[in-house]
Amino acid sequence: MLTVLTVFEVQQRILNSLNSTRTEVETIPASTSMGRAAAEVITAPEMVPSFARSTMDGYAVRSADTFGASESIPALLKLKGSVLMGEEPPGVLEPGEAMQIPTGGMIPSGSDSVVMVEYSEILGDQAAIYRPVAPFENLIRVGDDFQKGDIVIPAGRLIRSQDVGILSALGFLKLKVYSKPRVIIFSTGDEIILPQEEPRSGQIRDINGSSLAAQVTESGGEPEYRGIFPDQEEGLKKAVLESLDDADLILISGGSSVGERDVAVKVIDALPGGGVFFHGVSMRPGKPVIYGMSGGKPVFGLSGNPVSALFSFLLFARPILRTMQGLPPFPPFIPFVEALLDTNLSSPGGREDYVRVSLHQEPNGEDIVLARPVFGGAGLLSTMVKGDGYFVIPRDVEGIAEGSPIKVFLF
Amino acid sequence: MLTVLTVFEVQQRILNSLNSTRTEVETIPASTSMGRAAAEVITAPEMVPSFARSTMDGYAVRSADTFGASESIPALLKLKGSVLMGEEPPGVLEPGEAMQIPTGGMIPSGSDSVVMVEYSEILGDQAAIYRPVAPFENLIRVGDDFQKGDIVIPAGRLIRSQDVGILSALGFLKLKVYSKPRVIIFSTGDEIILPQEEPRSGQIRDINGSSLAAQVTESGGEPEYRGIFPDQEEGLKKAVLESLDDADLILISGGSSVGERDVAVKVIDALPGGGVFFHGVSMRPGKPVIYGMSGGKPVFGLSGNPVSALFSFLLFARPILRTMQGLPPFPPFIPFVEALLDTNLSSPGGREDYVRVSLHQEPNGEDIVLARPVFGGAGLLSTMVKGDGYFVIPRDVEGIAEGSPIKVFLF
Repeated sequence: MLTVLTVFEVQQRILNSLNSTRTEVETIPASTSMGRAAAEVITAPEMVPSFARSTMDGYAVRSADTFGASESIPALLKLKGSVLMGEEPPGVLEPGEAMQIPTGGMIPSGSDSVVMVEYSEILGDQAAIYRPVAPFENLIRVGDDFQKGDIVIPAGRLIRSQDVGILSALGFLKLKVYSKPRVIIFSTGDEIILPQEEPRSGQIRDINGSSLAAQVTESGGEPEYRGIFPDQEEGLKKAVLESLDDADLILISGGSSVGERDVAVKVIDALPGGGVFFHGVSMRPGKPVIYGMSGGKPVFGLSGNPVSALFSFLLFARPILRTMQGLPPFPPFIPFVEALLDTNLSSPGGREDYVRVSLHQEPNGEDIVLARPVFGGAGLLSTMVKGDGYFVIPRDVEGIAEGSPIKVFLF
Repeated sequence: MLTVLTVFEVQQRILNSLNSTRTEVETIPASTSMGRAAAEVITAPEMVPSFARSTMDGYAVRSADTFGASESIPALLKLKGSVLMGEEPPGVLEPGEAMQIPTGGMIPSGSDSVVMVEYSEILGDQAAIYRPVAPFENLIRVGDDFQKGDIVIPAGRLIRSQDVGILSALGFLKLKVYSKPRVIIFSTGDEIILPQEEPRSGQIRDINGSSLAAQVTESGGEPEYRGIFPDQEEGLKKAVLESLDDADLILISGGSSVGERDVAVKVIDALPGGGVFFHGVSMRPGKPVIYGMSGGKPVFGLSGNPVSALFSFLLFARPILRTMQGLPPFPPFIPFVEALLDTNLSSPGGREDYVRVSLHQEPNGEDIVLARPVFGGAGLLSTMVKGDGYFVIPRDVEGIAEGSPIKVFLF
């Protein structure tokens, strides 16, 4: 019999089984680190910026010299040369002086603010300032971005383009990251053939091998597809045993029938140093998921149904891959599309229902998005191909009324 | 003077200038097509599935033979062998017969439904059926996924894992996609040095070269960084001219001061077969964007400020890269995180304000997310490094009250 746990219980049990296992740390060029998770804390080795910079074209001044300045009574300051981009200023700014400065130019010592060129005028060797500026106006101070020693990139940060930029700014050319988890994928089933083969009556081409591999890549892993095995314990067990050294995670798909399920359960249960932790979860699609371990390595038996396999992957295997890469198992904030359900929908209750929907802009409805369920069981991949995303009907809810607002997570 | 257009106007002018330009079509393995846009329509060359399959372990029957069956008066059907996975059924099902079938097994001719094993019992050479089944119950019919000739992948579909799977199911090993747009990136500025160099006083390391390259990759393009050029017209013009043949899009960053801006404007305006279309857009950050073309190729002059440069890229350059790849310029549905602003915020009005925020779960607030603005100007990359995303204050709004719900788009 299947022991049926909730999605949340299964996720917790899986994460507890991992003990925060991480892959090995490797060092990669910072310029290619986007999408990887930092395996080290990057602190600012210096102040950023390391010198005060103007944010305007204008005149570096002492703000006190401009107090009270107006259109009718400008402050008249002695012009003292120009700051050139990338150069030190030509001298120290003394009281009563102004120095021409471009945006990005280094603020001279003695100056605490910049007057915009629009509010000034050159009169011979003097600058007439028509508006007062406050201290620190129109400049970036030393350390405004980061103070020396500040944490710039925390460990576990998923690197984005701005993070790549700040690493450049600090002169970090390399970054330590957790290596991509290696995921070995097996398909099983006497009826399954390779995509390049021509099916005879009763046979179908393998779907899960390629779609799971694509999901692994998307989730930051390195997939390796090891082909199709018949529903026979010995062959599959041998192949899985041989893969243990090369894999951080193993996915076996197939086995939606009772007989096949038994093969996957038996194989996983017979692996050294572990065995089946549980099988079955109260969700649809995806109920018949099997989870076990061997020598600390997680092994999944996923349904042969392509929709079940993908949802099981998203909910249960992706959090493992994230953990192994040093990320939190679930993103702290998950964006969604707000939509209105365009029909009444019943759900069996007692299990979480992952309903695939297509999205439609209401023709004259301003920004209203309608979600239309794509009907069909877990065996129909078309429900995901035609769908834009999914929403979740909780276990204790038996139906959702037409027009209800729902949160749609895009595929 | 800057001609100041709205974000929407700028986006429309840019897209109109493109005339739906696409990159060349290339053929790649379907298994590596995730994240690329299909450049062809894939229709189903056969029915999917091509044979009716059971979705349960049980008995293939004629539904009419089970009508009226109950616990007390079961239908008794003659057992006629078993369907094996991947094989044709051993014969045709005649009235009054039942054939054992596993999940995924091929439905025998003559049968229109499957009785679950739970509602049956073997009595010698007969199957006792304790519940009636309706026609087509517990099976997938021929063509339930896709009918022959149905569009499976429309042109312009961004390939997801399930699309990779359906291509495998149909035996498509290759897919035509638009090649990755080649984006050549120049940084300019007398004060800018390479990330591997040690800055002298007044110098800063290039940020935009690497962060824009990361964004280009993220947006499906192929970046090439051609280094740093001083604020001098001739050298930059020569380099841009030399890059025209190799690029689908050119990004020149730097030039936030009036003098540098003039250099970028002059260079873009002097390119053969085009020139500057406009500069300036009423947004912050990102106002000083310059857009032009040369021989039908778009050229951007982006601000040297890293925040302005990234926002300009996201709003104006990414739609071009999407168009070139055969995608709609903007995703039809953009997911967001719903949050409450945790402070009162004023905005200058008259221009769109892209406010960077960090997100926080309210400690005891169930699912409430708080958004806290990360203050700082366009020159401070830390506003994006410390931020989780941004929200937009429209042009005609001058402030948002604490506690207002906002839509946060994650970086």
